[in-house]
Amino acid sequence: MNITLEQAHTAIEAAQKKSEEIGVAMNIAIVDAGANLTAFARMDGAWLGSVDIAIKKAETARYFDMNTGEIGKLSQPGQPLFNIEHSNAGLITFPGGVPIKDINGDIIGAIGVSGGAVDQDHEVATYGMNAVK
Amino acid sequence: MNITLEQAHTAIEAAQKKSEEIGVAMNIAIVDAGANLTAFARMDGAWLGSVDIAIKKAETARYFDMNTGEIGKLSQPGQPLFNIEHSNAGLITFPGGVPIKDINGDIIGAIGVSGGAVDQDHEVATYGMNAVK
Amino acid sequence: MNITLEQAHTAIEAAQKKSEEIGVAMNIAIVDAGANLTAFARMDGAWLGSVDIAIKKAETARYFDMNTGEIGKLSQPGQPLFNIEHSNAGLITFPGGVPIKDINGDIIGAIGVSGGAVDQDHEVATYGMNAVK
Amino acid sequence: MNITLEQAHTAIEAAQKKSEEIGVAMNIAIVDAGANLTAFARMDGAWLGSVDIAIKKAETARYFDMNTGEIGKLSQPGQPLFNIEHSNAGLITFPGGVPIKDINGDIIGAIGVSGGAVDQDHEVATYGMNAVK
Repeated sequence: MNITLEQAHTAIEAAQKKSEEIGVAMNIAIVDAGANLTAFARMDGAWLGSVDIAIKKAETARYFDMNTGEIGKLSQPGQPLFNIEHSNAGLITFPGGVPIKDINGDIIGAIGVSGGAVDQDHEVATYGMNAVK
Repeated sequence: MNITLEQAHTAIEAAQKKSEEIGVAMNIAIVDAGANLTAFARMDGAWLGSVDIAIKKAETARYFDMNTGEIGKLSQPGQPLFNIEHSNAGLITFPGGVPIKDINGDIIGAIGVSGGAVDQDHEVATYGMNAVK
Repeated sequence: MNITLEQAHTAIEAAQKKSEEIGVAMNIAIVDAGANLTAFARMDGAWLGSVDIAIKKAETARYFDMNTGEIGKLSQPGQPLFNIEHSNAGLITFPGGVPIKDINGDIIGAIGVSGGAVDQDHEVATYGMNAVK
Repeated sequence: MNITLEQAHTAIEAAQKKSEEIGVAMNIAIVDAGANLTAFARMDGAWLGSVDIAIKKAETARYFDMNTGEIGKLSQPGQPLFNIEHSNAGLITFPGGVPIKDINGDIIGAIGVSGGAVDQDHEVATYGMNAVK
Protein backbone atom coordinates (compact mmCIF):
# COMPACT_ATOMS: atom_id res chain seq x y z
CA MET A 1 0.00 0.00 0.00
CA ASN A 2 1.07 3.53 -0.81
CA ILE A 3 0.44 6.67 1.16
CA THR A 4 -2.29 8.71 -0.55
CA LEU A 5 -1.91 12.36 -1.48
CA GLU A 6 -4.57 13.13 1.12
CA GLN A 7 -2.55 11.37 3.81
CA ALA A 8 0.57 13.15 2.62
CA HIS A 9 -1.16 16.50 2.94
CA THR A 10 -2.36 15.56 6.42
CA ALA A 11 1.23 14.85 7.42
CA ILE A 12 2.53 18.08 5.89
CA GLU A 13 -0.17 20.19 7.52
CA ALA A 14 0.55 18.68 10.91
CA ALA A 15 4.28 19.14 10.44
CA GLN A 16 3.77 22.71 9.32
CA LYS A 17 1.61 23.46 12.35
CA LYS A 18 4.27 22.05 14.68
CA SER A 19 6.96 24.07 12.85
CA GLU A 20 5.02 27.28 13.36
CA GLU A 21 4.54 26.36 17.01
CA ILE A 22 8.28 26.03 17.58
CA GLY A 23 9.00 29.00 15.33
CA VAL A 24 11.14 27.43 12.60
CA ALA A 25 10.52 27.54 8.83
CA MET A 26 10.82 24.01 7.50
CA ASN A 27 11.02 22.11 4.23
CA ILE A 28 8.75 19.06 4.42
CA ALA A 29 8.82 16.15 1.96
CA ILE A 30 6.71 12.99 1.69
CA VAL A 31 7.69 9.94 -0.35
CA ASP A 32 5.54 6.89 -1.00
CA ALA A 33 6.30 3.19 -0.48
CA GLY A 34 8.35 3.24 -3.69
CA ALA A 35 10.48 6.12 -2.33
CA ASN A 36 9.05 8.45 -4.98
CA LEU A 37 8.18 12.06 -4.12
CA THR A 38 4.48 12.44 -3.29
CA ALA A 39 4.21 15.92 -1.78
CA PHE A 40 6.47 18.76 -0.73
CA ALA A 41 6.17 22.16 0.92
CA ARG A 42 8.77 24.83 1.66
CA MET A 43 7.56 27.25 4.30
CA ASP A 44 8.24 30.92 3.49
CA GLY A 45 11.81 31.78 4.36
CA ALA A 46 12.96 28.19 4.92
CA TRP A 47 16.56 27.40 3.90
CA LEU A 48 16.96 26.80 0.17
CA GLY A 49 19.55 24.10 0.83
CA SER A 50 17.00 22.16 2.86
CA VAL A 51 14.76 21.49 -0.13
CA ASP A 52 17.08 18.73 -1.27
CA ILE A 53 17.87 17.62 2.27
CA ALA A 54 14.20 17.17 3.23
CA ILE A 55 13.61 15.07 0.11
CA LYS A 56 16.76 13.01 0.72
CA LYS A 57 15.77 12.42 4.37
CA ALA A 58 12.38 11.10 3.31
CA GLU A 59 13.97 8.88 0.66
CA THR A 60 16.63 7.63 3.06
CA ALA A 61 14.04 6.76 5.73
CA ARG A 62 12.10 4.66 3.22
CA TYR A 63 15.22 3.19 1.57
CA PHE A 64 16.11 1.50 4.85
CA ASP A 65 12.79 1.61 6.74
CA MET A 66 14.22 3.35 9.77
CA ASN A 67 14.71 6.84 11.16
CA THR A 68 17.54 8.60 9.34
CA GLY A 69 19.33 9.30 12.61
CA GLU A 70 19.67 5.56 13.20
CA ILE A 71 21.56 5.17 9.95
CA GLY A 72 23.75 8.13 10.86
CA LYS A 73 25.02 6.31 13.95
CA LEU A 74 26.15 3.45 11.71
CA SER A 75 27.74 5.64 9.04
CA GLN A 76 30.30 7.31 11.32
CA PRO A 77 34.03 6.65 10.83
CA GLY A 78 34.86 3.14 12.07
CA GLN A 79 31.20 2.07 12.03
CA PRO A 80 29.73 -0.64 9.77
CA LEU A 81 28.08 1.67 7.22
CA PHE A 82 30.79 4.33 6.99
CA ASN A 83 30.06 6.73 4.14
CA ILE A 84 26.89 4.98 3.01
CA GLU A 85 25.85 8.53 2.03
CA HIS A 86 27.61 8.00 -1.31
CA SER A 87 24.91 5.59 -2.46
CA ASN A 88 21.60 6.38 -4.14
CA ALA A 89 22.79 9.71 -5.54
CA GLY A 90 23.26 10.98 -1.98
CA LEU A 91 21.72 10.02 1.35
CA ILE A 92 21.12 12.25 4.36
CA THR A 93 21.63 10.27 7.55
CA PHE A 94 21.09 12.74 10.37
CA PRO A 95 17.72 13.03 12.15
CA GLY A 96 14.61 14.35 10.39
CA GLY A 97 13.55 11.39 8.24
CA VAL A 98 10.91 9.00 9.60
CA PRO A 99 9.00 6.09 7.98
CA ILE A 100 5.20 6.32 7.90
CA LYS A 101 3.10 3.22 8.68
CA ASP A 102 -0.56 2.44 8.14
CA ILE A 103 -2.82 1.08 10.88
CA ASN A 104 -1.57 -2.47 10.18
CA GLY A 105 2.04 -1.44 10.77
CA ASP A 106 3.00 -1.65 7.11
CA ILE A 107 5.28 1.09 5.83
CA ILE A 108 3.46 3.19 3.24
CA GLY A 109 5.99 6.00 2.84
CA ALA A 110 8.19 8.40 4.78
CA ILE A 111 8.48 12.03 5.83
CA GLY A 112 11.63 14.17 5.71
CA VAL A 113 11.98 17.53 7.44
CA SER A 114 14.83 20.03 7.23
CA GLY A 115 15.21 23.64 8.29
CA GLY A 116 16.04 23.71 11.98
CA ALA A 117 18.34 21.95 14.41
CA VAL A 118 18.25 18.21 13.81
CA ASP A 119 16.28 17.61 17.00
CA GLN A 120 13.65 20.06 15.78
CA ASP A 121 13.62 18.41 12.36
CA HIS A 122 13.04 15.02 13.97
CA GLU A 123 10.32 16.37 16.30
CA VAL A 124 8.45 17.90 13.39
CA ALA A 125 8.85 14.78 11.22
CA THR A 126 7.55 12.58 14.03
CA TYR A 127 4.60 14.89 14.55
CA GLY A 128 3.77 14.75 10.84
CA MET A 129 4.15 10.96 10.78
CA ASN A 130 1.80 10.53 13.74
CA ALA A 131 -0.90 12.54 11.99
CA VAL A 132 -1.28 9.76 9.41
CA LYS A 133 -3.56 7.04 10.66
CA MET B 1 9.31 38.90 -5.15
CA ASN B 2 8.90 35.20 -4.55
CA ILE B 3 5.70 33.19 -4.68
CA THR B 4 4.53 32.34 -1.15
CA LEU B 5 3.68 28.83 0.00
CA GLU B 6 0.07 29.93 0.33
CA GLN B 7 0.03 31.08 -3.29
CA ALA B 8 1.72 27.86 -4.33
CA HIS B 9 -0.96 25.82 -2.59
CA THR B 10 -3.67 27.87 -4.25
CA ALA B 11 -2.13 27.06 -7.64
CA ILE B 12 -1.81 23.36 -6.84
CA GLU B 13 -5.37 23.07 -5.53
CA ALA B 14 -6.75 24.75 -8.63
CA ALA B 15 -4.62 22.55 -10.89
CA GLN B 16 -5.69 19.46 -9.00
CA LYS B 17 -9.37 20.41 -9.31
CA LYS B 18 -8.99 20.89 -13.06
CA SER B 19 -7.15 17.55 -13.33
CA GLU B 20 -10.00 15.76 -11.58
CA GLU B 21 -12.46 17.49 -13.85
CA ILE B 22 -10.72 16.15 -16.97
CA GLY B 23 -10.06 12.79 -15.30
CA VAL B 24 -6.25 12.66 -15.37
CA ALA B 25 -3.90 12.10 -12.41
CA MET B 26 -1.20 14.75 -12.52
CA ASN B 27 2.10 15.66 -10.90
CA ILE B 28 2.14 19.38 -10.08
CA ALA B 29 5.26 21.36 -9.12
CA ILE B 30 5.77 24.99 -8.12
CA VAL B 31 9.12 26.78 -8.13
CA ASP B 32 9.84 30.28 -6.86
CA ALA B 33 11.50 33.23 -8.63
CA GLY B 34 14.90 31.64 -8.03
CA ALA B 35 13.74 28.39 -9.67
CA ASN B 36 13.85 26.57 -6.33
CA LEU B 37 11.13 24.01 -5.48
CA THR B 38 8.38 25.50 -3.32
CA ALA B 39 5.59 22.92 -3.38
CA PHE B 40 4.74 19.65 -5.08
CA ALA B 41 1.86 17.19 -5.23
CA ARG B 42 1.49 13.84 -7.01
CA MET B 43 -2.13 12.82 -7.36
CA ASP B 44 -2.85 9.20 -6.53
CA GLY B 45 -1.95 6.96 -9.45
CA ALA B 46 -0.08 9.66 -11.42
CA TRP B 47 2.92 8.50 -13.45
CA LEU B 48 6.08 8.10 -11.38
CA GLY B 49 8.23 9.36 -14.27
CA SER B 50 6.28 12.57 -14.26
CA VAL B 51 7.54 13.63 -10.82
CA ASP B 52 10.82 14.75 -12.33
CA ILE B 53 9.17 16.05 -15.51
CA ALA B 54 6.76 18.28 -13.60
CA ILE B 55 9.64 19.74 -11.58
CA LYS B 56 11.79 20.26 -14.69
CA LYS B 57 8.87 21.91 -16.52
CA ALA B 58 8.42 24.40 -13.69
CA GLU B 59 12.16 25.09 -13.61
CA THR B 60 12.36 25.45 -17.39
CA ALA B 61 9.45 27.91 -17.47
CA ARG B 62 11.21 30.10 -14.90
CA TYR B 63 14.66 29.65 -16.44
CA PHE B 64 13.47 31.33 -19.64
CA ASP B 65 10.33 33.15 -18.46
CA MET B 66 8.09 31.55 -21.07
CA ASN B 67 5.82 28.56 -21.54
CA THR B 68 7.84 25.39 -21.98
CA GLY B 69 6.07 24.57 -25.23
CA GLU B 70 7.45 27.76 -26.79
CA ILE B 71 10.99 26.58 -26.13
CA GLY B 72 10.15 23.18 -27.58
CA LYS B 73 9.27 24.74 -30.91
CA LEU B 74 12.73 26.31 -31.04
CA SER B 75 14.61 23.20 -29.91
CA GLN B 76 13.51 20.93 -32.79
CA PRO B 77 16.09 19.65 -35.29
CA GLY B 78 17.05 22.52 -37.59
CA GLN B 79 15.63 25.14 -35.22
CA PRO B 80 17.73 27.76 -33.39
CA LEU B 81 17.83 26.07 -29.96
CA PHE B 82 18.31 22.43 -31.01
CA ASN B 83 19.25 20.29 -28.03
CA ILE B 84 19.03 23.11 -25.46
CA GLU B 85 17.64 20.34 -23.21
CA HIS B 86 21.21 19.35 -22.37
CA SER B 87 21.68 22.46 -20.27
CA ASN B 88 20.80 23.00 -16.61
CA ALA B 89 21.01 19.30 -15.76
CA GLY B 90 18.08 18.62 -18.07
CA LEU B 91 15.25 20.75 -19.39
CA ILE B 92 11.75 19.65 -20.41
CA THR B 93 10.58 21.71 -23.37
CA PHE B 94 7.15 20.37 -24.26
CA PRO B 95 3.96 22.01 -22.94
CA GLY B 96 3.03 21.95 -19.25
CA GLY B 97 5.33 24.60 -17.74
CA VAL B 98 4.00 28.13 -17.29
CA PRO B 99 5.48 31.20 -15.51
CA ILE B 100 3.44 32.72 -12.67
CA LYS B 101 3.18 36.51 -12.37
CA ASP B 102 2.00 38.74 -9.55
CA ILE B 103 -0.55 41.51 -10.03
CA ASN B 104 2.22 43.86 -11.20
CA GLY B 105 3.20 41.47 -13.98
CA ASP B 106 6.47 40.45 -12.32
CA ILE B 107 7.35 36.78 -12.50
CA ILE B 108 7.32 35.27 -9.00
CA GLY B 109 7.68 31.59 -9.93
CA ALA B 110 6.37 28.92 -12.27
CA ILE B 111 4.13 25.85 -12.36
CA GLY B 112 4.92 22.55 -14.06
CA VAL B 113 2.36 19.82 -14.71
CA SER B 114 2.93 16.31 -16.06
CA GLY B 115 0.77 13.21 -16.22
CA GLY B 116 -1.51 13.50 -19.23
CA ALA B 117 -1.30 14.46 -22.88
CA VAL B 118 0.78 17.62 -23.24
CA ASP B 119 -2.29 19.68 -24.11
CA GLN B 120 -3.90 18.53 -20.89
CA ASP B 121 -0.72 19.29 -18.96
CA HIS B 122 -0.68 22.80 -20.38
CA GLU B 123 -4.38 23.34 -19.68
CA VAL B 124 -3.98 22.28 -16.07
CA ALA B 125 -0.81 24.38 -15.60
CA THR B 126 -2.55 27.45 -17.04
CA TYR B 127 -5.51 26.88 -14.75
CA GLY B 128 -3.22 26.66 -11.74
CA MET B 129 -1.29 29.76 -12.82
CA ASN B 130 -4.48 31.78 -13.19
CA ALA B 131 -5.54 30.94 -9.65
CA VAL B 132 -2.65 32.98 -8.26
CA LYS B 133 -3.59 36.65 -7.97
CA MET C 1 49.02 31.05 -23.41
CA ASN C 2 45.93 31.67 -21.36
CA ILE C 3 43.58 34.61 -21.45
CA THR C 4 44.23 36.86 -18.43
CA LEU C 5 41.51 38.00 -16.06
CA GLU C 6 42.08 41.53 -17.34
CA GLN C 7 41.48 40.39 -20.92
CA ALA C 8 38.42 38.43 -19.78
CA HIS C 9 37.00 41.56 -18.15
CA THR C 10 37.69 43.56 -21.29
CA ALA C 11 35.70 41.01 -23.28
CA ILE C 12 32.83 40.98 -20.78
CA GLU C 13 32.65 44.78 -20.60
CA ALA C 14 32.54 45.06 -24.37
CA ALA C 15 29.92 42.33 -24.61
CA GLN C 16 27.86 43.97 -21.88
CA LYS C 17 28.02 47.34 -23.67
CA LYS C 18 26.84 45.75 -26.90
CA SER C 19 24.04 43.96 -25.02
CA GLU C 20 22.82 47.22 -23.55
CA GLU C 21 22.98 48.79 -27.00
CA ILE C 22 20.69 46.13 -28.47
CA GLY C 23 18.55 46.07 -25.33
CA VAL C 24 18.93 42.46 -24.18
CA ALA C 25 20.09 41.26 -20.75
CA MET C 26 22.79 38.64 -21.29
CA ASN C 27 24.78 36.05 -19.40
CA ILE C 28 28.43 36.26 -20.44
CA ALA C 29 31.08 33.61 -19.67
CA ILE C 30 34.80 33.44 -20.41
CA VAL C 31 36.87 30.25 -20.27
CA ASP C 32 40.62 29.99 -20.65
CA ALA C 33 42.76 27.81 -22.95
CA GLY C 34 42.09 24.86 -20.63
CA ALA C 35 38.32 25.38 -20.95
CA ASN C 36 38.13 26.38 -17.28
CA LEU C 37 35.85 29.23 -16.18
CA THR C 38 37.76 32.51 -15.88
CA ALA C 39 35.05 35.14 -15.54
CA PHE C 40 31.28 35.41 -15.65
CA ALA C 41 28.61 38.10 -15.43
CA ARG C 42 24.81 37.87 -15.43
CA MET C 43 23.23 41.20 -16.32
CA ASP C 44 20.29 42.17 -14.10
CA GLY C 45 17.16 40.39 -15.26
CA ALA C 46 18.93 37.99 -17.64
CA TRP C 47 17.41 34.49 -17.93
CA LEU C 48 18.42 32.17 -15.09
CA GLY C 49 18.60 29.23 -17.48
CA SER C 50 21.20 31.06 -19.53
CA VAL C 51 23.82 30.98 -16.76
CA ASP C 52 24.60 27.38 -17.58
CA ILE C 53 24.11 27.86 -21.31
CA ALA C 54 26.59 30.76 -21.50
CA ILE C 55 29.20 28.70 -19.65
CA LYS C 56 28.55 25.63 -21.83
CA LYS C 57 28.81 27.74 -25.02
CA ALA C 58 32.20 29.08 -23.95
CA GLU C 59 33.39 25.58 -23.04
CA THR C 60 32.06 24.11 -26.29
CA ALA C 61 33.77 26.79 -28.40
CA ARG C 62 37.12 26.00 -26.75
CA TYR C 63 36.57 22.22 -26.71
CA PHE C 64 36.49 22.22 -30.51
CA ASP C 65 38.11 25.58 -31.34
CA MET C 66 35.24 26.79 -33.46
CA ASN C 67 32.07 28.83 -33.16
CA THR C 68 29.36 26.81 -31.44
CA GLY C 69 26.98 27.37 -34.35
CA GLU C 70 29.36 25.49 -36.64
CA ILE C 71 29.17 22.42 -34.43
CA GLY C 72 25.38 22.73 -34.35
CA LYS C 73 25.21 22.28 -38.12
CA LEU C 74 27.07 18.99 -37.77
CA SER C 75 25.03 17.72 -34.81
CA GLN C 76 21.66 17.72 -36.58
CA PRO C 77 19.85 14.44 -37.30
CA GLY C 78 21.64 12.63 -40.15
CA GLN C 79 24.77 14.75 -39.81
CA PRO C 80 28.21 13.42 -38.77
CA LEU C 81 28.13 14.63 -35.15
CA PHE C 82 24.49 13.89 -34.34
CA ASN C 83 23.83 14.33 -30.63
CA ILE C 84 27.41 15.24 -29.75
CA GLU C 85 25.71 17.33 -27.04
CA HIS C 86 25.70 14.23 -24.82
CA SER C 87 29.46 14.47 -24.30
CA ASN C 88 31.37 16.53 -21.76
CA ALA C 89 28.49 16.70 -19.29
CA GLY C 90 26.46 18.62 -21.88
CA LEU C 91 27.42 20.79 -24.85
CA ILE C 92 25.49 23.73 -26.28
CA THR C 93 25.91 23.83 -30.05
CA PHE C 94 23.82 26.76 -31.22
CA PRO C 95 25.37 30.20 -31.86
CA GLY C 96 26.80 32.33 -29.05
CA GLY C 97 30.13 30.64 -28.31
CA VAL C 98 33.27 31.99 -30.00
CA PRO C 99 36.99 31.19 -29.50
CA ILE C 100 39.28 34.04 -28.48
CA LYS C 101 42.74 34.38 -30.10
CA ASP C 102 45.76 36.43 -29.16
CA ILE C 103 47.60 38.66 -31.64
CA ASN C 104 49.56 35.65 -32.93
CA GLY C 105 46.37 33.79 -33.79
CA ASP C 106 46.73 31.29 -30.96
CA ILE C 107 43.54 30.40 -29.12
CA ILE C 108 43.74 31.60 -25.52
CA GLY C 109 40.14 30.98 -24.45
CA ALA C 110 36.54 31.46 -25.52
CA ILE C 111 33.46 33.56 -24.82
CA GLY C 112 29.90 32.28 -24.45
CA VAL C 113 26.81 34.50 -24.47
CA SER C 114 23.18 33.57 -23.77
CA GLY C 115 20.06 35.61 -23.13
CA GLY C 116 18.66 36.72 -26.46
CA ALA C 117 17.93 35.27 -29.87
CA VAL C 118 20.88 33.17 -31.05
CA ASP C 119 21.86 35.79 -33.63
CA GLN C 120 22.02 38.37 -30.86
CA ASP C 121 24.01 36.00 -28.66
CA HIS C 122 26.51 35.45 -31.48
CA GLU C 123 26.75 39.17 -32.25
CA VAL C 124 27.48 40.01 -28.63
CA ALA C 125 30.00 37.16 -28.27
CA THR C 126 31.83 38.28 -31.41
CA TYR C 127 31.91 41.84 -30.14
CA GLY C 128 33.38 40.68 -26.84
CA MET C 129 35.91 38.46 -28.61
CA ASN C 130 37.08 41.32 -30.82
CA ALA C 131 37.73 43.53 -27.78
CA VAL C 132 40.57 41.20 -26.73
CA LYS C 133 43.77 42.08 -28.58
CA MET D 1 15.68 41.45 -3.28
CA ASN D 2 18.53 40.14 -5.38
CA ILE D 3 22.08 41.42 -5.46
CA THR D 4 22.68 43.47 -8.63
CA LEU D 5 25.53 42.84 -11.05
CA GLU D 6 26.98 46.20 -10.01
CA GLN D 7 26.96 45.15 -6.34
CA ALA D 8 28.47 41.80 -7.31
CA HIS D 9 31.30 43.54 -9.16
CA THR D 10 31.90 45.80 -6.17
CA ALA D 11 32.27 42.72 -3.97
CA ILE D 12 34.59 40.98 -6.44
CA GLU D 13 36.80 44.04 -6.90
CA ALA D 14 37.16 44.48 -3.14
CA ALA D 15 37.89 40.78 -2.68
CA GLN D 16 40.43 40.88 -5.50
CA LYS D 17 42.17 43.89 -3.97
CA LYS D 18 42.40 42.14 -0.60
CA SER D 19 43.73 38.99 -2.31
CA GLU D 20 46.49 40.97 -4.01
CA GLU D 21 47.31 42.60 -0.70
CA ILE D 22 47.86 39.23 0.99
CA GLY D 23 49.53 37.82 -2.12
CA VAL D 24 47.19 34.93 -2.98
CA ALA D 25 45.44 34.29 -6.31
CA MET D 26 41.77 33.60 -5.62
CA ASN D 27 38.62 32.38 -7.33
CA ILE D 28 35.70 34.59 -6.34
CA ALA D 29 32.03 33.75 -6.97
CA ILE D 30 28.82 35.66 -6.27
CA VAL D 31 25.35 34.09 -6.19
CA ASP D 32 22.03 35.92 -5.85
CA ALA D 33 19.21 35.37 -3.35
CA GLY D 34 18.04 32.35 -5.36
CA ALA D 35 21.55 30.83 -5.16
CA ASN D 36 22.07 31.36 -8.90
CA LEU D 37 25.49 32.45 -10.19
CA THR D 38 25.69 36.21 -10.75
CA ALA D 39 29.39 36.94 -11.25
CA PHE D 40 32.71 35.13 -11.10
CA ALA D 41 36.41 35.93 -11.44
CA ARG D 42 39.48 33.70 -11.35
CA MET D 43 42.65 35.67 -10.72
CA ASP D 44 45.60 34.76 -12.95
CA GLY D 45 47.28 31.63 -11.64
CA ALA D 46 44.54 30.73 -9.15
CA TRP D 47 43.91 27.01 -8.60
CA LEU D 48 41.71 25.44 -11.26
CA GLY D 49 40.06 23.18 -8.69
CA SER D 50 38.94 26.23 -6.79
CA VAL D 51 36.60 27.42 -9.55
CA ASP D 52 34.01 24.88 -8.47
CA ILE D 53 34.83 25.28 -4.79
CA ALA D 54 34.32 29.06 -4.86
CA ILE D 55 30.94 28.61 -6.58
CA LYS D 56 29.89 25.86 -4.14
CA LYS D 57 30.94 27.99 -1.15
CA ALA D 58 28.78 30.86 -2.35
CA GLU D 59 25.85 28.51 -2.95
CA THR D 60 26.31 26.81 0.42
CA ALA D 61 26.39 30.15 2.28
CA ARG D 62 23.09 31.13 0.68
CA TYR D 63 21.54 27.67 1.02
CA PHE D 64 21.78 27.93 4.80
CA ASP D 65 22.20 31.69 5.34
CA MET D 66 25.40 31.32 7.35
CA ASN D 67 29.16 31.27 6.89
CA THR D 68 30.28 27.98 5.35
CA GLY D 69 32.75 27.38 8.17
CA GLU D 70 29.87 27.27 10.67
CA ILE D 71 28.32 24.39 8.76
CA GLY D 72 31.68 22.63 8.64
CA LYS D 73 31.85 22.53 12.44
CA LEU D 74 28.50 20.72 12.48
CA SER D 75 29.32 18.28 9.67
CA GLN D 76 32.32 16.64 11.33
CA PRO D 77 32.16 12.96 12.34
CA GLY D 78 29.95 12.66 15.42
CA GLN D 79 28.43 16.08 14.91
CA PRO D 80 24.75 16.70 14.04
CA LEU D 81 25.16 17.35 10.30
CA PHE D 82 27.75 14.69 9.44
CA ASN D 83 28.04 14.28 5.65
CA ILE D 84 25.55 17.04 4.81
CA GLU D 85 27.95 17.71 1.92
CA HIS D 86 26.21 14.96 -0.07
CA SER D 87 23.14 17.15 -0.55
CA ASN D 88 22.50 19.73 -3.23
CA ALA D 89 24.90 18.11 -5.72
CA GLY D 90 27.80 18.87 -3.39
CA LEU D 91 28.34 21.42 -0.64
CA ILE D 92 31.62 22.97 0.51
CA THR D 93 31.53 23.49 4.26
CA PHE D 94 34.92 24.92 5.18
CA PRO D 95 35.47 28.69 5.51
CA GLY D 96 35.28 31.05 2.54
CA GLY D 97 31.54 31.38 1.91
CA VAL D 98 29.69 34.33 3.45
CA PRO D 99 26.10 35.62 2.99
CA ILE D 100 25.67 39.18 1.69
CA LYS D 101 22.98 41.41 3.23
CA ASP D 102 21.49 44.69 2.09
CA ILE D 103 21.20 47.74 4.35
CA ASN D 104 17.95 46.35 5.82
CA GLY D 105 19.68 43.16 6.89
CA ASP D 106 17.97 41.03 4.25
CA ILE D 107 20.12 38.42 2.54
CA ILE D 108 20.48 39.30 -1.16
CA GLY D 109 23.15 36.76 -2.11
CA ALA D 110 26.48 35.31 -1.04
CA ILE D 111 30.18 35.36 -1.86
CA GLY D 112 32.47 32.34 -2.10
CA VAL D 113 36.26 32.53 -2.20
CA SER D 114 38.77 29.73 -2.79
CA GLY D 115 42.47 29.69 -3.58
CA GLY D 116 44.39 30.12 -0.35
CA ALA D 117 44.37 28.78 3.18
CA VAL D 118 40.80 28.68 4.48
CA ASP D 119 41.46 31.57 6.85
CA GLN D 120 42.62 33.65 3.91
CA ASP D 121 39.59 32.58 1.88
CA HIS D 122 37.29 33.67 4.72
CA GLU D 123 39.12 36.97 5.19
CA VAL D 124 38.84 37.80 1.50
CA ALA D 125 35.16 36.76 1.36
CA THR D 126 34.35 38.91 4.38
CA TYR D 127 36.15 41.85 2.84
CA GLY D 128 34.18 41.44 -0.38
CA MET D 129 30.91 41.08 1.53
CA ASN D 130 31.56 44.27 3.49
CA ALA D 131 32.07 46.24 0.29
CA VAL D 132 28.39 45.77 -0.61
CA LYS D 133 26.25 48.44 1.05
